[in-house]
Amino acid sequence: MISLAGGLPDASMFPVDALATIAGEVIARDGARVLQYGVTRGEESARAALATLYGDPLFDGADPDHPDTGHPDPDDLVVTTGSQQGLDLVARVLLDPGDVVVTGDPEYLGVLQILRSVNAAVHPIPIDGDGLDTAVLADRLEGGLRPKACYIVPHFHNPTGATMSTERRAHLHELSSKYGFVVIEDDPYRELYYDGERPEERVGDPDLTVRFRSTSKVLAPGLRIGSLTGPAWLREAVVTAKQSADLHTSTVTQAIVAEALRSPWLAEHLDALRRTYGHKRDVLVAALHDAFGDGVRFETPAGGMFVWAEFGGDVDTATWLNAALEHLVCFVPGAAFAVERELASSSRLSFVTPPPDDLREGVLRLVRSRPASKY
Amino acid sequence: MISLAGGLPDASMFPVDALATIAGEVIARDGARVLQYGVTRGEESARAALATLYGDPLFDGADPDHPDTGHPDPDDLVVTTGSQQGLDLVARVLLDPGDVVVTGDPEYLGVLQILRSVNAAVHPIPIDGDGLDTAVLADRLEGGLRPKACYIVPHFHNPTGATMSTERRAHLHELSSKYGFVVIEDDPYRELYYDGERPEERVGDPDLTVRFRSTSKVLAPGLRIGSLTGPAWLREAVVTAKQSADLHTSTVTQAIVAEALRSPWLAEHLDALRRTYGHKRDVLVAALHDAFGDGVRFETPAGGMFVWAEFGGDVDTATWLNAALEHLVCFVPGAAFAVERELASSSRLSFVTPPPDDLREGVLRLVRSRPASKY
Repeated sequence: MISLAGGLPDASMFPVDALATIAGEVIARDGARVLQYGVTRGEESARAALATLYGDPLFDGADPDHPDTGHPDPDDLVVTTGSQQGLDLVARVLLDPGDVVVTGDPEYLGVLQILRSVNAAVHPIPIDGDGLDTAVLADRLEGGLRPKACYIVPHFHNPTGATMSTERRAHLHELSSKYGFVVIEDDPYRELYYDGERPEERVGDPDLTVRFRSTSKVLAPGLRIGSLTGPAWLREAVVTAKQSADLHTSTVTQAIVAEALRSPWLAEHLDALRRTYGHKRDVLVAALHDAFGDGVRFETPAGGMFVWAEFGGDVDTATWLNAALEHLVCFVPGAAFAVERELASSSRLSFVTPPPDDLREGVLRLVRSRPASKY
Repeated sequence: MISLAGGLPDASMFPVDALATIAGEVIARDGARVLQYGVTRGEESARAALATLYGDPLFDGADPDHPDTGHPDPDDLVVTTGSQQGLDLVARVLLDPGDVVVTGDPEYLGVLQILRSVNAAVHPIPIDGDGLDTAVLADRLEGGLRPKACYIVPHFHNPTGATMSTERRAHLHELSSKYGFVVIEDDPYRELYYDGERPEERVGDPDLTVRFRSTSKVLAPGLRIGSLTGPAWLREAVVTAKQSADLHTSTVTQAIVAEALRSPWLAEHLDALRRTYGHKRDVLVAALHDAFGDGVRFETPAGGMFVWAEFGGDVDTATWLNAALEHLVCFVPGAAFAVERELASSSRLSFVTPPPDDLREGVLRLVRSRPASKY
């Protein structure tokens, strides 16, 4: 089976030996500390290291056009058991049953599950190649919609691969300030950029923006280390909720991450990830064009893990998947990520896990399994 | 400052070198697996290892007087980010706002915080030297009390040190079956027994009992590995909630625990913990008798980490603490753990962290700081 369905990073790219060495060293050296109970908001060394995943060293607040792009103060960070926990805790402390939360459509399933678990009212706004369509959102707000929060994945969105345009992010932050809702910026893929520069940081009203970073795509998901930063009123409520939720995140994996993020090999590791994943993206994109020609439409994602492919109005990718499985290839039908849109002709194709030859062969199997009735 | 206030294990007893070696080895050997995303209910190897913390190899279900004392099926276990997360998830899936939950009085603060966070109605029942007083509970149930759950720490309770008697556990399980409430058995201290045999496992109605084990006192709290087992209807709801809450517990620390719990050094490590902590208990108990004579009352705990000391009706330990701090000794006043009882003359004294000489000196400082007005 060739899987284009996965949402997992390529395990062959994990810095296994470096992390094994670090794990042994931090426990042997600091065992009395890293094996003991820790503080709920996270270890100081981990918060300092995680702060470097925010902001952009190129801007660092010095450029007046980018006043808020520096690293956050580590004291303003909370370490969480993956970004998923941060999202869950923010939902628990911010939302009452029935509160409206704007999401994209289609959207990351993990956040939809969280929002349903707290009985929030999800209000979907279409996502296109430039991200969540803020013009549509502005119309809804003018029409009376009063959300408590808006969730976005600003870069290389899952499942669409879209990066939100500069104009739309500025527009969203304008709307956030005007209508007083929180912008939840979930940004796990930001370091996985394949076309030139790292995306710029753009922060809206600091009292209305909560930002998430994860080490799952940068180092390894099994460490379960994410972080969030945001206004004190929300952050401190999250810390209180986290104390009930799990006391604190593993001090062992926090110590591993703190050491790994300041290791000299990190820059080369990230470059290697970008080269490898970027090459795989190029292979999948070329294979799709070669195999389907005008029969497929997609925007080439500038980073991340996914190509969002549309196969034309009357293709039903859920039906196609059944045939594809018989040809030993799989993907996730677009409808799986839909909130209220009809996305039956779309598919999410992941390019990071399979080797390049499998990506090419997988696309050939997709062609062979394409439902005959459609062509 | 000599602290008799702590609830932390003695860091000098952590198996640092063994865990450092294991951490390096499991990542180097199985990095592609242990650094990757994992399944929400926990890794198979971790569940199999954690199952050995339940039950009692001496009984193993073979003795007809102990029919339910074997290890649970690893497939019926859920790995959690510490027992705290398990308790939080059970509260989230089991309780609606206003639901009544019976706890002891005094009680572990962490569970009271969880119950308040889900707006449960806590109904406290006094704890004495034999644990939660089930005769009082039976009266309340006859009087119309209808709890959804009852929380107990069956062995070496925090803060009282009490172990629930065999008769009361049987009585509690009878009441659970009769009135249909869930018994939440939180048992983190069970391996820390100092007087002979490991406590026997006693399970009530398997459809109404959820049991927790932690590795925090057995190995190290920084790993954040706990587990729960219980009826399928509750367990599977917990797994669903956990998927939202943090996707899964760190696969890295699960792998470390799986390896550590089947290591040949584990039995000797646990023996050493029992010897060291048991000796410290004896030192504190002797020092208290020597220093206070009839001025203190307590039952010597058969295990765990705490002596619950009563200093007589008109002593106010909160006032005493202020004087104690000036004499560089601290403890937690009993009132901190009270739900509705007056426990102003009690204190929780922890004996596991300070070295024996500090325990003796700490008690002398307690005597010197004793409020003069009282004696």
